[in-house]
Amino acid sequence: MDATEFRKRGKEMVDYIADYLETIEKRRVYPDVEPGYLRPHIPDSAPEEPERFEDILKDVEKIIMPGASSPACTELETVMLDWLGKMINLPPSFLAEKDGEGGGVIQGTASEATLVALLAARTKAIQRAQSENGTLTQGDVIGRLVAYTSDQAHSSVEKDGLIAGVKTKQLPTDDAFAVRGSALRKAVDQDKAAGLIPFFFCATLGTTTCCSFDKLSELGPICNEENIWMHVDAAYAGSSFICPEFRHLLNGVEFADSFNFNPHKWLLVNFDCSTMWVKKRTDLTCAFKIDPVYLKHAHQESGLITDYRHWQIPLGRRFRSLKMWFVFRMYGVKGLQEYIRKHVKLAHEFKDLVLQDDRFEICADVILGLVCFRLKGTNELNEALLKNINASRKIHLVPCNLRGKFVLRFAVCARTVESAHVQFAWKHITKLAGELLKAQKQQD
Amino acid sequence: MDATEFRKRGKEMVDYIADYLETIEKRRVYPDVEPGYLRPHIPDSAPEEPERFEDILKDVEKIIMPGASSPACTELETVMLDWLGKMINLPPSFLAEKDGEGGGVIQGTASEATLVALLAARTKAIQRAQSENGTLTQGDVIGRLVAYTSDQAHSSVEKDGLIAGVKTKQLPTDDAFAVRGSALRKAVDQDKAAGLIPFFFCATLGTTTCCSFDKLSELGPICNEENIWMHVDAAYAGSSFICPEFRHLLNGVEFADSFNFNPHKWLLVNFDCSTMWVKKRTDLTCAFKIDPVYLKHAHQESGLITDYRHWQIPLGRRFRSLKMWFVFRMYGVKGLQEYIRKHVKLAHEFKDLVLQDDRFEICADVILGLVCFRLKGTNELNEALLKNINASRKIHLVPCNLRGKFVLRFAVCARTVESAHVQFAWKHITKLAGELLKAQKQQD
Repeated sequence: MDATEFRKRGKEMVDYIADYLETIEKRRVYPDVEPGYLRPHIPDSAPEEPERFEDILKDVEKIIMPGASSPACTELETVMLDWLGKMINLPPSFLAEKDGEGGGVIQGTASEATLVALLAARTKAIQRAQSENGTLTQGDVIGRLVAYTSDQAHSSVEKDGLIAGVKTKQLPTDDAFAVRGSALRKAVDQDKAAGLIPFFFCATLGTTTCCSFDKLSELGPICNEENIWMHVDAAYAGSSFICPEFRHLLNGVEFADSFNFNPHKWLLVNFDCSTMWVKKRTDLTCAFKIDPVYLKHAHQESGLITDYRHWQIPLGRRFRSLKMWFVFRMYGVKGLQEYIRKHVKLAHEFKDLVLQDDRFEICADVILGLVCFRLKGTNELNEALLKNINASRKIHLVPCNLRGKFVLRFAVCARTVESAHVQFAWKHITKLAGELLKAQKQQD
Repeated sequence: MDATEFRKRGKEMVDYIADYLETIEKRRVYPDVEPGYLRPHIPDSAPEEPERFEDILKDVEKIIMPGASSPACTELETVMLDWLGKMINLPPSFLAEKDGEGGGVIQGTASEATLVALLAARTKAIQRAQSENGTLTQGDVIGRLVAYTSDQAHSSVEKDGLIAGVKTKQLPTDDAFAVRGSALRKAVDQDKAAGLIPFFFCATLGTTTCCSFDKLSELGPICNEENIWMHVDAAYAGSSFICPEFRHLLNGVEFADSFNFNPHKWLLVNFDCSTMWVKKRTDLTCAFKIDPVYLKHAHQESGLITDYRHWQIPLGRRFRSLKMWFVFRMYGVKGLQEYIRKHVKLAHEFKDLVLQDDRFEICADVILGLVCFRLKGTNELNEALLKNINASRKIHLVPCNLRGKFVLRFAVCARTVESAHVQFAWKHITKLAGELLKAQKQQD
């Protein structure tokens, strides 16, 4: 949607809201629909081709408004998570469909998704330990639990461990910054011998630092064998899995208990929208379910409905699946695939520019939209380069530390990015690098 | 703002966004401001009288846009929480101002605010216990920690206890459904004698069931004396404290460590916006602080800036304080006070209607916008009445259970509610009640 159409559609939406407010007394105070009313009105999967805005808005009035905020908010979310799950070819065991044991939910951020998975895993681990040894208290078990993640994983995993009160250990990664099965095997064996209980592994697909991918197909079988909950955090990379050529990066997810990525990062859905799937929804509800009278409802125990409040930390919820519905239909799967492919292509264009300049080096495989690079030389030199780049305020880069090396990260992520921007950025970087190296030479 | 002005302003906003997107390349990629740039541009407190929309929008361009999303998002939030704190006459120790030790933050929901307070309290309690006895592990301490709340408190407190892995006990309430000092004293003494460590008390001002108020002035001194973190949850009632005549309900908050209420419930700010204040911001940051390289920044240790990511569960944040800024200025404090007063008045109007009908009884003091009432008679009778009311879909009521009694709750909460709606609701309720009683008589 270009700016001209945005002006038109935006103003139509303003009128739609104003009309709604002016005529609200003509509407029902409570929806007159049965559980599961929404799914039959909506296709089983996202459209391949883009649809027209006016058709989507007609469906809002026809399908959403009769279901008001509840149950429409819940039911559209379940169906949208099925759509998106199919778009990335997630194993059917993660889908809700009509009577699946799994299903998806929108969390606010990947940190929350990891925390929810960690807490569900903790509940299962406590129950298992207590069923094997009835004298153990909850505190006894928690004190022995140990969670694992990559030494390249996002810091939020460590924070989630703090919240849950469990030990978190970072596993060493290989030359491609990936956790391998051997590293997990070694840690599990050592910790079990020391009397600890390994219970949770957070694998990362597309690390924040350098977009590396843990080896799920090696790690998954170990987790399954050892009763370790495997959560897969693909916060950034997950969006790319809608393209068949990147889907192999998700191989091994069939061993996972939960999977999460952020459409708000790279799938044109506005913040916040972090999508999470579990194989067994009862794993979540057992960890969180508390039912006071004022939250009871007629369909409570029917098994027909989903109470997302048992799937998350907060109680209240927003209608975030509308964003997914609009975006998937406005772009179509093909449009979204084009968008991802363009970004990856531009990242490779930048990588090629770096490789053509002998003063620079590439520091990690370029797989998606991130390029890790640096000037050959000291960390101080690269810190100075970053400082100059960001001080000039023409582009903005965020650094990382890879095995002691200070590394610059070029991330292709804006909606409107073109080759001209990449060329501009590289020209700017090389200009500042040239000035810096010249000044340094004069000092020597 | 009526619908006519909403249409006009909404369309102006659509154009503003489209203009922004069309000319984005003319703007800086990174803000050129120093920490603390925003506060001097904004008054110290909210305006008494309403302001004009165009003046607010001018300030967005002048004050917010130069500070982009960061630091503007953080700095406006800090100042808005100071504004709101002053509006409810919160003790200055809870404000950030220029160099306070306290301050406010926007959480998504009251459940999250309670969880954040609980986790900060847990960290303090563990540190204290370990400093007294160096051989204790974290697991040892957590196993002995006990949190308290009212038997009328929201279920989310129990859920937060589950997440934190600590015991939660519900304290009995008095005839007005309030926790008294004596109940807390008794529980603390018993639990300490049994080797437990009381560490957290969640007081409620305006319970979900019947809008009762725990006695802070009795509970606070006990908490302070016993090193128990007192968190005050005023999710619904908090908005009313902007009226001087209701401010006494907050008396005793000076003993609290943290305080929370939801402007999204009753202060015309859209969901979600749950405002939380703490007396010592370091209590939060000590519990959550983790700093990887890719989140480091130049002002990290300067003490000049606030990193809200250490104040909450998620990492990512939305610019929710804009909603507060717009609402406070569009209504002015006086306009918001009028809004609260109107709702309370309408609740009393409904209460008087109930009292004039001998078949009904009032079940709890009417203090704000909630009226708890029922037909004199069995729970089955009242369950049948509720079922008929909600089945007819003209109004919608949510029940509660008060000491075994099934009670109907009439909540005045819509933005556009008028006396006519209250009268309509009562007429409808009495009609259905009459039919029900008649049918029952015929059965007897």
